[in-house]
Amino acid sequence: MENQKSYHMSAEAFRRLGYRLIDWIADYQERADEYPVLSQSQPGAIRAKLPPHPPQQGEDLQRIFADLESIILPGITHWQSPNFFAYFPANTSGPAILGELLSAGLGVQGMLWATSPACTELETHVMDWMVEALGLPQQFNSRGQGGGVIQDSASSAAVCAIIAARERINQLHSNEAGCDGQLTAYASTQAHSSIEKGVKIAGIGRNNLRLIEVDVNHAVIPEALEHAIQADIAAGKKPFFVSATIGTTASNGMDPLPQIGAIAQKYGLWFHVDGAMSGVAAICQEYRHLQEGLHLADSYCTNPHKWMFTNFDCDCFFVADRKALIQSLSILPEYLRNKATESGAVIDYRDWQVSLGRRFRALKLWMVLRHYGIEGLQYHIRRHIQLAQEFAAWVRADQNFELAAPAPLNLVCFRHRGGDEINQAIMDRINQSGKMYFSHTKLHDRFTLRLCIAQTRTERQHVENAWQLIKHTATQLSGKA
Amino acid sequence: MENQKSYHMSAEAFRRLGYRLIDWIADYQERADEYPVLSQSQPGAIRAKLPPHPPQQGEDLQRIFADLESIILPGITHWQSPNFFAYFPANTSGPAILGELLSAGLGVQGMLWATSPACTELETHVMDWMVEALGLPQQFNSRGQGGGVIQDSASSAAVCAIIAARERINQLHSNEAGCDGQLTAYASTQAHSSIEKGVKIAGIGRNNLRLIEVDVNHAVIPEALEHAIQADIAAGKKPFFVSATIGTTASNGMDPLPQIGAIAQKYGLWFHVDGAMSGVAAICQEYRHLQEGLHLADSYCTNPHKWMFTNFDCDCFFVADRKALIQSLSILPEYLRNKATESGAVIDYRDWQVSLGRRFRALKLWMVLRHYGIEGLQYHIRRHIQLAQEFAAWVRADQNFELAAPAPLNLVCFRHRGGDEINQAIMDRINQSGKMYFSHTKLHDRFTLRLCIAQTRTERQHVENAWQLIKHTATQLSGKA
Repeated sequence: MENQKSYHMSAEAFRRLGYRLIDWIADYQERADEYPVLSQSQPGAIRAKLPPHPPQQGEDLQRIFADLESIILPGITHWQSPNFFAYFPANTSGPAILGELLSAGLGVQGMLWATSPACTELETHVMDWMVEALGLPQQFNSRGQGGGVIQDSASSAAVCAIIAARERINQLHSNEAGCDGQLTAYASTQAHSSIEKGVKIAGIGRNNLRLIEVDVNHAVIPEALEHAIQADIAAGKKPFFVSATIGTTASNGMDPLPQIGAIAQKYGLWFHVDGAMSGVAAICQEYRHLQEGLHLADSYCTNPHKWMFTNFDCDCFFVADRKALIQSLSILPEYLRNKATESGAVIDYRDWQVSLGRRFRALKLWMVLRHYGIEGLQYHIRRHIQLAQEFAAWVRADQNFELAAPAPLNLVCFRHRGGDEINQAIMDRINQSGKMYFSHTKLHDRFTLRLCIAQTRTERQHVENAWQLIKHTATQLSGKA
Repeated sequence: MENQKSYHMSAEAFRRLGYRLIDWIADYQERADEYPVLSQSQPGAIRAKLPPHPPQQGEDLQRIFADLESIILPGITHWQSPNFFAYFPANTSGPAILGELLSAGLGVQGMLWATSPACTELETHVMDWMVEALGLPQQFNSRGQGGGVIQDSASSAAVCAIIAARERINQLHSNEAGCDGQLTAYASTQAHSSIEKGVKIAGIGRNNLRLIEVDVNHAVIPEALEHAIQADIAAGKKPFFVSATIGTTASNGMDPLPQIGAIAQKYGLWFHVDGAMSGVAAICQEYRHLQEGLHLADSYCTNPHKWMFTNFDCDCFFVADRKALIQSLSILPEYLRNKATESGAVIDYRDWQVSLGRRFRALKLWMVLRHYGIEGLQYHIRRHIQLAQEFAAWVRADQNFELAAPAPLNLVCFRHRGGDEINQAIMDRINQSGKMYFSHTKLHDRFTLRLCIAQTRTERQHVENAWQLIKHTATQLSGKA
């Protein structure tokens, strides 16, 4: 059965290659800081090293290790390097990697409860654990009317929230007759791009998304939100959805959830909250104030794949009223009918997402929670925040630099006082050097550097090195200018 | 750095657990036939075995192996059992599992070319390999105006195709102003439910999806399609999208692509083709006739995660005009701007999908293609089809059973001649026995059994056993009736 003629990989070969790959990954994770963080590959350079045609005959996969070193690694931007400070991170950890391996090994497809009850029930259970671990309001607990589901990303969560909101206000009419261009949605100018993308996908139209102005701290101004809603109502539009953010991508701005929630309730809008990275901080009691007002939300998401050591993809998406979501996304063709579904006693997660099929993603989150415990996760979240606060203090104390936004958690937005050009030059030169990788945004129309500290292996020395490198590069560039 | 105090898993512990998990998976794959295929778990039984609260302190993950046996496995429906014949499969293989492990270990997030050029370029390259391996028309090759991308599922591919179609006909107007309820889409009554779901998600509305009648072989009737389009035009509607299927889910019906494509061209519709499972058969020259007419398609998808030994998720989605797709889904906030993107010389796959973030899924497909080679894949596809044809012959030869549809490939639709009740009873009794797992559909309003042969380890003996069990169960039930 496992012989050469079958072409399948023998169990022995799987073990041999598997051990070696485990070793390779263990080594990689430890030496990830030895590579240029941002890949220095030129467009097309990776492809040029690959054979133009697919292999006719199979080959020994032992060769993969040579190719990893010569073809793949030069084209990797090392998200697992402790010197990765760009965007929001996609960190990972040993238990998460093993959880993903286990998911692949079991190879179940959890579209229905019946197609693997453990895939569904572990997911529901771990989502309830997350409600407890993060101190989330109880409307998101599956024991009540709500519940959680793992999505691939906050973008997909946003699409699902928008669809559920669209169908709630229209009593499923949009699903039947299509959209009519009358619905209006609201988010801040600082909301993640996925809100705009979701509004387009869902047939709402970008012109019907109002981007509400923010205050000096990049938090939405509630009065401006309410004015926009009132203006739309006066114009005959139907406001239906508002999204707020715990920790915006650009600057970690914190929207005032209690006020936005109150406005949402007053006008009957679906209130979605995106806490993609920063929501994870709530695992520490002292940061739970950031989710004050979340009890008013209809849906919420936060991403263990960003800052909780669970490799991408793992977005935790919670809804207060699961029926509103399910009704909007449910499809039941004959070939999926089964007794468990029809009993109504089980969750079929296919109705909680865009896709039909799904992987067993709860395993990796389960393994992370079990390996670290709440205590271990708190330790690292606190450590990252402390490092970011130290970095912010260094910026504050340096006459050539300034903070560009409050740094409530682990993202520091700052800039050299010399203007956009030198900031762009500092970033480009450092990123091209490969020594570290960070990114930028624009705040109040000014080029702003972003340093996000959340990588699994980032230690104090990496943050110190980053600051020294930034200062040194600024000095070099200033001298030239 | 790797000490106890850090809470991280040490490299040593990762290796130790990793080896053990590799061994566990190797064993599991070999003994997957020893478990009841369909989980016999009752609703809530898995959750009842799990601790109600997340762990405060971390625990030794060695305990995971005991939990796998006592908690997880009883709740698994064994998609990797050779006795799994239900739905369409989600098969896997050694190289695919290792590819997923590698992806998790590298932990890159490939939203942009710059965030790991190898993630993007290997994907583009392997998609071009698939064009060659499957003999797909050249408009899907990235060297021209088109190209391929890996989606999680055919459902997501359908959403992307519908959005791109919607924006093409409306010149991006729906993205701006929202849908207006005037667009109409077309698919057969046998199209996958994801088309209806996609039409709803995209704001088109189910009432604007025409489900066109099929002929006796469950293939769409082109004249009926054209009449529907003409009627809509006469009624002032705007036909914009038609989906056809290579191998419908219910019965493996084959839509006539040349005729549908010609109609799509005549009326300016986006022509999407869904070959989720059966498209993979084209890796064998002798089945390429099934994709005749595909050169007329604007988009196409087929799923290595169904029938090409690449674990879920791996849907290959191809478009003939990548600009049409990208324009529809593109978002470029300041924090994602970078020189490579602005040069226009690279692909940023975030604009080819709903989500922003993405995993390095090309690795597993690359490893499968390299391990098996075209030759090895052909061997297994042919073997599966041959087994299905044998099974179909046994059905044909049995006076108590009949085929319910042509069996062009590896899906056999059949029924006992005794009517719906006994067929339902046969299926329920067998599935509950755990000896094998198969599923059903309705064809011409009659309850129909479906047996799909595509699991990695399914051999002749498993198919023989299945047939004996079905016959035996029918006899038992007939005797009682």
